[in-house]
Amino acid sequence: MTVIGIDGDDTLWRNEEHFRAAEEHFVAIVGNYYDGDDIADQLLAIEMGHVEIYGFGVKGFTLSMIETANALSGGQVSAEDIGRILELGHDLLRVPIELLDGVGDALEDLASTHQLLLITKGDLQHQQRKVEASGLATHFDDVHVVAHKDPPTYKSVLDRHRLPPANFMMVGNSVNSDVLPVLELGGRAVHIPYHMTWAAEVADDDTHEAATGFTTVAHLRDVAGLLRPAGEQL
Amino acid sequence: MTVIGIDGDDTLWRNEEHFRAAEEHFVAIVGNYYDGDDIADQLLAIEMGHVEIYGFGVKGFTLSMIETANALSGGQVSAEDIGRILELGHDLLRVPIELLDGVGDALEDLASTHQLLLITKGDLQHQQRKVEASGLATHFDDVHVVAHKDPPTYKSVLDRHRLPPANFMMVGNSVNSDVLPVLELGGRAVHIPYHMTWAAEVADDDTHEAATGFTTVAHLRDVAGLLRPAGEQL
Repeated sequence: MTVIGIDGDDTLWRNEEHFRAAEEHFVAIVGNYYDGDDIADQLLAIEMGHVEIYGFGVKGFTLSMIETANALSGGQVSAEDIGRILELGHDLLRVPIELLDGVGDALEDLASTHQLLLITKGDLQHQQRKVEASGLATHFDDVHVVAHKDPPTYKSVLDRHRLPPANFMMVGNSVNSDVLPVLELGGRAVHIPYHMTWAAEVADDDTHEAATGFTTVAHLRDVAGLLRPAGEQL
Repeated sequence: MTVIGIDGDDTLWRNEEHFRAAEEHFVAIVGNYYDGDDIADQLLAIEMGHVEIYGFGVKGFTLSMIETANALSGGQVSAEDIGRILELGHDLLRVPIELLDGVGDALEDLASTHQLLLITKGDLQHQQRKVEASGLATHFDDVHVVAHKDPPTYKSVLDRHRLPPANFMMVGNSVNSDVLPVLELGGRAVHIPYHMTWAAEVADDDTHEAATGFTTVAHLRDVAGLLRPAGEQL
């Protein structure tokens, strides 16, 4: 019996738009101190440089925005603007959950025939609050907030459920985080593209091309059709 | 058969000293802008005001330090000092793990007769890195990084292991986090005081007085003696 893992951000609810809107505000703030058009790139470089100690999520993003503002302004950024950046973080942490169209019905459908696990990456407290606010938790047998979506992390989730990878299918919007590591473990994966993807989540084209054995569908409701009774092959 | 939950910070490895050392640096920085002797109190108030959105851990602590510096300096804090505060956060995230004396042997002893769960609160990524760096993970059947140590969270951990509270004993340095919520669920608890406790973790004296049914021991190695073969009563 296949157990289905489902991603949260940009698979069940909107996320990336909010980060990009905060980033636009941030670029406008730093643009008062810095002439280059690479503010967002510099921010991403600082974020990636700290992933090992910060992990993923709004708090690390906010700390990286402050550090970037400091660096690109040559130490000239005002305390008032630092306060604005802190507020961008608070706003991101407080933004109401907006479910993607039709995911509630699609989950109800899937949950009627399969065990579902919600597997979502980021700050523990924030992700738990989002899961709760989504009202979707009842469809899931378990919720795992993870620091990374790499093969060892998926393996530890599967081990916790005594689940062989062959009996696991992951569904999500990120080829890098939801598809490739699960394929590497010997599991199955379904990609549901979202209309925007964080630069750090964009799979390298070569990697993406080389990856086979996963299906891309337009909507979560299409996943049920992939789980045929005859052996449940994709 | 009793399963033993064990806390991480200040039960297995040093933690609070590092936060207090960072706070001393912070107070010295803000002291250049602000005359009052309540800088640490103001920081704590801002931290507590954000616990709901930040949770616990270094990243939220750092964001709260920046906000406090901004507020108490009347917007005069320099970008250079903001940079110093960011570095205090980075240092906290990178400080090497220093195990408390004798905990390795004590865990080995306990693990030879009982299932152990490590239950630790804070930033997911940071706590997982600390667990890994501690070299103690092999003694534990499972590791749970939680956002809060309240009765619903303990219940969800116990449910995951299909464990009735009566078969669970929690061991840790915080009466508020490791003892009271577990007693409330009907489990058992052992308090191992640490020589310093974060103000937000200090149990209200009345609550502490009223709480009964838990034992205080001086060291983790004393826990084994509490688990007598005859019914394993405390």
